[in-house]
Amino acid sequence: MTYAAPIAQMRFALEAAADIWSLRARFPELDEDLLAAILEGAAQLSGEVLAPLNRTGDQARVTLAKDAVKSAPGFRDAYEAFREAGWLGLSADPAYGGQGLPRAAMLAVFETVHAANMSFGLLPMLSMGAIEAIEQHGAADQKELYLAKLISGEWTGTMNLTEPQAGSDLGALTTKAVPQADGSYSITGQKIFITWGEHDMTPNIIHLVLARIEGAPAGSKGISMFIVPKFRDEDGSRNAVRCIGLEEKMGIHASPTCTMAYEGAQGWLIGEENRGLAAMFTMMNAARLNVGMQGVAIAEAAYQKAHAYAQDRKQGGAMIIAHPDVRRMLTLMKAKIQAGRALCYATAVAADRGEKAREDLLTPLAKAWCTELGVEAASLGVQVHGGMGFVEEGGAAQFYRDARIAPIYEGTNGIQAMDLYGRKLLADRGEAMAELIADALAAGEKAPRLKEAAAALEEATGYMLTAAHEDALAGSFEYLMLAGDVAGGVLLARGLAREKDEEQRALFAVYSEYVLARAGARLPAIKLGAAALTA
Amino acid sequence: MTYAAPIAQMRFALEAAADIWSLRARFPELDEDLLAAILEGAAQLSGEVLAPLNRTGDQARVTLAKDAVKSAPGFRDAYEAFREAGWLGLSADPAYGGQGLPRAAMLAVFETVHAANMSFGLLPMLSMGAIEAIEQHGAADQKELYLAKLISGEWTGTMNLTEPQAGSDLGALTTKAVPQADGSYSITGQKIFITWGEHDMTPNIIHLVLARIEGAPAGSKGISMFIVPKFRDEDGSRNAVRCIGLEEKMGIHASPTCTMAYEGAQGWLIGEENRGLAAMFTMMNAARLNVGMQGVAIAEAAYQKAHAYAQDRKQGGAMIIAHPDVRRMLTLMKAKIQAGRALCYATAVAADRGEKAREDLLTPLAKAWCTELGVEAASLGVQVHGGMGFVEEGGAAQFYRDARIAPIYEGTNGIQAMDLYGRKLLADRGEAMAELIADALAAGEKAPRLKEAAAALEEATGYMLTAAHEDALAGSFEYLMLAGDVAGGVLLARGLAREKDEEQRALFAVYSEYVLARAGARLPAIKLGAAALTA
Repeated sequence: MTYAAPIAQMRFALEAAADIWSLRARFPELDEDLLAAILEGAAQLSGEVLAPLNRTGDQARVTLAKDAVKSAPGFRDAYEAFREAGWLGLSADPAYGGQGLPRAAMLAVFETVHAANMSFGLLPMLSMGAIEAIEQHGAADQKELYLAKLISGEWTGTMNLTEPQAGSDLGALTTKAVPQADGSYSITGQKIFITWGEHDMTPNIIHLVLARIEGAPAGSKGISMFIVPKFRDEDGSRNAVRCIGLEEKMGIHASPTCTMAYEGAQGWLIGEENRGLAAMFTMMNAARLNVGMQGVAIAEAAYQKAHAYAQDRKQGGAMIIAHPDVRRMLTLMKAKIQAGRALCYATAVAADRGEKAREDLLTPLAKAWCTELGVEAASLGVQVHGGMGFVEEGGAAQFYRDARIAPIYEGTNGIQAMDLYGRKLLADRGEAMAELIADALAAGEKAPRLKEAAAALEEATGYMLTAAHEDALAGSFEYLMLAGDVAGGVLLARGLAREKDEEQRALFAVYSEYVLARAGARLPAIKLGAAALTA
Repeated sequence: MTYAAPIAQMRFALEAAADIWSLRARFPELDEDLLAAILEGAAQLSGEVLAPLNRTGDQARVTLAKDAVKSAPGFRDAYEAFREAGWLGLSADPAYGGQGLPRAAMLAVFETVHAANMSFGLLPMLSMGAIEAIEQHGAADQKELYLAKLISGEWTGTMNLTEPQAGSDLGALTTKAVPQADGSYSITGQKIFITWGEHDMTPNIIHLVLARIEGAPAGSKGISMFIVPKFRDEDGSRNAVRCIGLEEKMGIHASPTCTMAYEGAQGWLIGEENRGLAAMFTMMNAARLNVGMQGVAIAEAAYQKAHAYAQDRKQGGAMIIAHPDVRRMLTLMKAKIQAGRALCYATAVAADRGEKAREDLLTPLAKAWCTELGVEAASLGVQVHGGMGFVEEGGAAQFYRDARIAPIYEGTNGIQAMDLYGRKLLADRGEAMAELIADALAAGEKAPRLKEAAAALEEATGYMLTAAHEDALAGSFEYLMLAGDVAGGVLLARGLAREKDEEQRALFAVYSEYVLARAGARLPAIKLGAAALTA
């Protein structure tokens, strides 16, 4: 069987849990019919076009010949179908051909795309990041030049941040930008881990590149962002940027991960000088939420495959789904997936509502909690398959390999934990988190496990706000996971308060006993302190 | 860097935690000097000969041409070095060339072998299983014929259990054995997932094969075990058994996983007719413990690589090991590894002491808890590497891929949980478990987290003994994990009571807050019952 978008689960998460209809006033065009049409359209594309290319793409991989990247068979046609249907413009600016719908709707589309084919999904995901960065930071003429073609999908976008010596620490980057007489810059340096940095899917690629203008301050305050098109707009001439290597990766084989060489490439400053990190965070935040969605998506794909196998595979005269331990794995996957899905959608809805503090708080939770889930669920999916899970032919193994990148890229989950602590919790002295805890305590009135977990989160938050910096950092990952446990629980509980649904109730019961009931037991680890971590 | 056996950690686990010197009376030949020489010899072989072949073997893989399997480059010489040093005979019967030393010493050797090269380690591991089965169930002439050559490593052994329609449920197997006039049997059928079922490492291979004698009862009570040599002993003629396919697997690429066709192969009954499962369990129990050790071993290998990377890799002007969250991952790996190591060694010591009930109780814990650890630690090892963890060149990815088989083979961890519940707990009405709990409560007098966890295990045990069968099965995996948490804790705590060691004390502190402190929070999941698992 292939992937089929779980529309009922998605609708419950969007409507009941994440409260997408609270956006009616802001987005009057979105009604129930349109949402249903979007979900069905996405389901069709993902199930019929993208999913069949997932394993073939894994096997064929992408290849580099000279500096040209050849995509896996079928990917160009699939992209063409995706592009023609206009999916990329769903939440983009109508002034440039977008439809101006909520990001939450776009994210739901991405869920199905990532679940069907994570390698493929990265291409529009990166374009989305570029679109948002140019929408928010680009000058009028830059928007004019690039937005319509990125939104239509005629061109794609990339993010060029990492360098060999500068990964999580972007302040160390050394790519140089030298001002030219015509107002452009000459960019020289090497970037690594550039997803879809080069490909044969579209006639042009728009690179957003972090670099340091000659004479700029050291560290992260001297970084600017540049637009570097593969082909110059004015005369169509080839720019001095090329792919000089592809990584041999454990997974997402159909997605090229490029080493890009900029050798005096012509680029244009986007946003202000030395304010590149702000523009970068625009891209990054959208991408982080989208990567969290990938975690949920690959978990869902792994769940569907495992569930189908368990219903089909006989052992001891019965299908293996009859075994309680197999049902444990499947139900746990499903319950956590639904919590993670609600968490991602709710983050998007917060963004759509303009609730910046809530969006900022939930983004690292969505990224890290959901990508940990992706790995966990993919691993459970392998386990349900038994020996066939370890054999590539079965398909479960690919999810396990693909899923592993998501806790790493767009800021490792350790970076997310530092972000939650340093840029969110400390920045507002815990105010946004206090609101989440208040929500959880309120929802917990009818859900004792949620209440216990919320109380633990409250205690942990008090600790994080007062602990020495190093000690708080030592506990930050477990703290993030606790907050994610609670946030997922709040959303499921609120969904159930809005909409009675037997299946969702059952999932929440499992989530309560498997996740919420042990959330509070993270406290000792959170409070252990840095000195104890001696390895 | 390559793998270096962690001799100090191994010695603490063997001596202080698993109490290997309680074996002095039974094994007077083993003294401290000999143990030290064994560990150092194993460390040398593993570090210098086997570890350098780990990544090359992963890349070269094994290949099948007609029915001949070609091993990865260097593997034959490595096996020759392993064989010549006599490692396989360490714990084998001196009457056939073995040294008669404790299994715990042999297991420690295997730890280093698996850590250095898991694909390679499977070959002697399977031979060990065959040796033990023939030692315990073989007739005198069978021992005479096969044991010396298996023990010397001149030939290797295999286990042929699984068939396409009979995996975890061996009762469904259909391979036929037809009695012949000369007392032998003609074996016909197909076996899958046969590790090192065919290879070019030794001139002969001894297959131990489960099959059903014509007219035998259906189900598991009609299964017999047969010895089927690749080449007949009497005249060296080729037997009608051959490899007709290799699985394309996610990991352990240098270990052939064979589909074996028996086409009227000549075999000899080992043990009694229809009692094949008893002989199978002899092999299986040894193999299960050894697979648990693989979990620890690959976790150790992953730890060492991640630790070296963290000490070497700079971010933001400091090595990444300076980040508390990186230290969290490394210290957590190390603490759990030491608990898992102690658990495996203690299981072997119980076997060496003849404490059957304790050995039987600990075997599923060692297999399942430690292989879950293997996957978890390999995943953390990838995470410590950041982007480089996902790139095959870094080496961390291979551990993540290789580790994933261990929770599956030799009985999935779900099967281990059923075994712990059905064949261990119910069989003695919780007596052996009560002893473990009593040990934990006693050791917990000075370790409050251990005491809490032991109390939770006591409560969970009461539940398991009284719950309806399906409900107990639904909780059995979490129950096993809770028991593993506690068993690891007991051993580390008792080790510290015997031997003061600052590093071990620090690891136990981390184990207490990260593992024991949340062990009890598994209770709600254990008690949730089967009806709630609806997926």
